[in-house]
Amino acid sequence: MFQPAGGQLRVGVAIGEHVLDLAAVAAAGLLPADPAAFAAPSLNAFLALGRATWTATRRRVGELLTAGNTELRAAGLVPGALHPQDAVHLCLPVEVADYVDFYSSLEHATNLGRLFRPGGEPLLPNWRHLPVAYHGRAGTVVPSGTPIVRPCGQRLSPRAGEPSFGPSTRLDIELEVGFVVGVGSRLGTPVPAADAAEHIFGLVLVNDWSARDIQAWEYQPLGPFLGKSFATSISPWVVPLDALAPFRAPARPQDPPVLPYLRAEGDWALDLDLLVELHTAGMAARGLPPEVISRTNLRHVYWTMPQQLAHATVNGASLRTGDLFASGTVSGPEPGTYGSLIELTWGGTQPLRLPDGSERAFLEDGDTVTLRGWCGGDGGRPRVGFGAVSGQVQPAPLSG
Amino acid sequence: MFQPAGGQLRVGVAIGEHVLDLAAVAAAGLLPADPAAFAAPSLNAFLALGRATWTATRRRVGELLTAGNTELRAAGLVPGALHPQDAVHLCLPVEVADYVDFYSSLEHATNLGRLFRPGGEPLLPNWRHLPVAYHGRAGTVVPSGTPIVRPCGQRLSPRAGEPSFGPSTRLDIELEVGFVVGVGSRLGTPVPAADAAEHIFGLVLVNDWSARDIQAWEYQPLGPFLGKSFATSISPWVVPLDALAPFRAPARPQDPPVLPYLRAEGDWALDLDLLVELHTAGMAARGLPPEVISRTNLRHVYWTMPQQLAHATVNGASLRTGDLFASGTVSGPEPGTYGSLIELTWGGTQPLRLPDGSERAFLEDGDTVTLRGWCGGDGGRPRVGFGAVSGQVQPAPLSG
Repeated sequence: MFQPAGGQLRVGVAIGEHVLDLAAVAAAGLLPADPAAFAAPSLNAFLALGRATWTATRRRVGELLTAGNTELRAAGLVPGALHPQDAVHLCLPVEVADYVDFYSSLEHATNLGRLFRPGGEPLLPNWRHLPVAYHGRAGTVVPSGTPIVRPCGQRLSPRAGEPSFGPSTRLDIELEVGFVVGVGSRLGTPVPAADAAEHIFGLVLVNDWSARDIQAWEYQPLGPFLGKSFATSISPWVVPLDALAPFRAPARPQDPPVLPYLRAEGDWALDLDLLVELHTAGMAARGLPPEVISRTNLRHVYWTMPQQLAHATVNGASLRTGDLFASGTVSGPEPGTYGSLIELTWGGTQPLRLPDGSERAFLEDGDTVTLRGWCGGDGGRPRVGFGAVSGQVQPAPLSG
Repeated sequence: MFQPAGGQLRVGVAIGEHVLDLAAVAAAGLLPADPAAFAAPSLNAFLALGRATWTATRRRVGELLTAGNTELRAAGLVPGALHPQDAVHLCLPVEVADYVDFYSSLEHATNLGRLFRPGGEPLLPNWRHLPVAYHGRAGTVVPSGTPIVRPCGQRLSPRAGEPSFGPSTRLDIELEVGFVVGVGSRLGTPVPAADAAEHIFGLVLVNDWSARDIQAWEYQPLGPFLGKSFATSISPWVVPLDALAPFRAPARPQDPPVLPYLRAEGDWALDLDLLVELHTAGMAARGLPPEVISRTNLRHVYWTMPQQLAHATVNGASLRTGDLFASGTVSGPEPGTYGSLIELTWGGTQPLRLPDGSERAFLEDGDTVTLRGWCGGDGGRPRVGFGAVSGQVQPAPLSG
C-alpha cells in the first residue's frame, strides 16, 4: 500500500526501488480484476478475491514488466505510474481483522521458559502437541516507521513485594514473520491444513514490541496483554505466497508425531533470511551505520503455517480477510540467531556492546530497530525481498 | 440493530415489545444527528459521533415518545416506523473492533483458581493490583440466536499422558456484561479513568462460551485461545450509559489500595440483575419452560469499567469505535449466584438436576442457554431491560 504525494491510498507492487501503481494499471484495463480492488485504502478488497485472481494478477504484472512488453508505455503509464519508493508514503498494507501471535520457535519457547520459569521444565507439556498462540490487539498493528512510545505500566521489582508504576525498563523486540489471510471461512467449519494455500495470501515482517517487565507481572493466568498491546509493527509489503514457491523447504521433523488434523503435506518451511539492526541515537549522531545484532532464518521454526491455520480453526473459529497470524519470535539454535533482546542478552545479564561504546540490555529512547528479510539472491536463485519494518523508541509520556 | 422483512439493516431503539426505526425517524429530520449514522449496518457510525450527540439523540427520542407528542404521527411514522420485535431480525449491534475479556469478579477468579490450580493460592499475586484481561477473537463475536457448534480440539484426559482430539466434553457458558467503546483514542496516549464516560457508549450482555477441557490443556503460558475463540454471543441491544444513571452504586472496597492511575471518582458499580436460563431439548419436548440456574448482579464485580479502560490504555494502546470490553464471568458470593457451569457444578462434580429428570455437569447438544439482564423495576424505579442473549448448542462437525 502506498500514497503518492497529494494522492489517495492505493495498491502498489515493489519493482526494485520503485513502486508500480496498480490502481492506475487496473484503471487502464490491463489487470484481470476489478479496478476498485486496487484503488482502495488497503489490500483487503483484493485479498477477498481469492487465489485464482491473486495468481492471474501476479502473472499479468510479471508479463507487463517483461523486457520488450510495451503495454504500460502504450497506455501512458511509464513513467507516470512508476514512483520512486522514497517519494511516496508506504502505509499499513492490510486492515487487520484479528491478530493472532503464535509461539512456534522451539528455541525461542525453550529460551523464554528458562528465563521466565527458572528451575522448571522450560517447555510446557502442551508445546510439542499444538502450536501455542494467543490473540493480540489488532487495533495497534502499525506500519513500519510509526514511532514506538515507551509503554508505562505495572511491574514488580525483584526487591519489592508490591508493584510500582512507570515506564517499562525492559523494552524489547520480537523478530517475527506473519501471514495474511485473503479468503475467510465459515463459522463452525474448520479449515483443513491441506486448504491453507486457498486462504493464505502472503507474508509480512512483524516486530512484536514487548515490555518484558510489564509482561512478567501481568501474564498469569490469561497470557500477555499490556506487555504487547502498545504496538506491533509490520512491513508495508505483503509478499505473495506464489512468489515464495522457489524457497519452500521440508519442515523440520516433529517429535512426537502430531495429531491427524495437524498433518500437512508438502514443503512448508521457508528459507527466509532475517536480520535485526539496531541504531542508537548515539550511533546516528556519530554517523555510524546500524549494527546487525541478529541473523536468523525462518526455516528453523517448528510449527508451519498450514498447521497454525488448521489449529486456529479446528474449533470452528472463522477466518476473515485481513486476519494476521504471526509466527512468534524466530530464534535459531545459536545465540547470534535469537530474535529478541531478552534472549540475545540472556535476560539483560549479558548486554550487547555497540560500536559507539554503549551497551544495551534492553532498548533505550532514541533507539531504532529495523527488521529485514529476503529469500534467495544466492547461488543463481532470484532474490525476493520483504523490505524492512522499522520503528524508533520515543520517551514515555509524562504521567503518574 | 435490526433488519425489517425485505429491508436494509438499520439502527433501532427498543420500546417495549416494539422497535422504533431510527433511520426512518432521522430521515424525516426529527433527530439531531446525520441520518446516515442510522441507516447503517452497525451502530459504529453513530457511536463515533460522541457523547454530546448520544445524549442529545437519547433525549430527543424520549421527547418524541412522550405521551401527547404528535411529531412521529405527523411525519407518518406511526405505525410505519414502529415494528413488533418478533417481526424483524435482530442483528449484531456493533462491528467489533478489538474484543478484550477481563477477569474482574473476585468470586469467579477465586473459584477458577481453586478448580484449575488445586492446592495452590487461588488468587494469583497480581489479581488485586490490576484488572487481569486478555484479547479474545473479535471475528467470532456473534449476535444472540446464532447456533453454537460444539468445538473440537485437543484435551488431556486425566488418565492419559497424551492429548486426544475430539468434541469438547466440558462445554460451558460465562455470564458477562460488556461495554462498547464509542469514541476512540490516539496511539501512545493513555485514557484516564476520569474520561471513561467520554469513550463508553453503553453495555451489552455477553455469553463467553468456553470449552473447559480445551482451555485447561492449551492455556499455559499464553492464556485461553481455542477454548474461547469459537463463539462469543452478545445481545442485540446496547443500553446507553445515560439510561443506567439511576442504577449506579458505590463500587466495593478494594484492598490493597490501587495505584493512582486506577483511581476512579464516582459510583461506577451497577445494580444490574442478571440470570441464566437453561432449556434442554428434553425440557422443550415436554413443554417445560426454561430453568433459571443462576441469579446474580453486576454490582458484585471488583474492577469497574473506568478502571478497566484506564488499565487497557495505560501502556498507550489506542481505542477504536466498536471495541468491546467484557467484564469476565459475573459470580456472586453464593453457589446459586455463579456465572458459569464449572462453578455451579464445581468442576462437574455436582451436576444440576433439571425438571425433566436429566442432569447437567456441562452443556449437551440441543441445550439452549439464555442470559437476561435488567435494572430496576422495583420500588418505584423505572425498569431498563437489556433483553436477552441466547444460543443453542449444535453437534460438533464430523471430523477426525
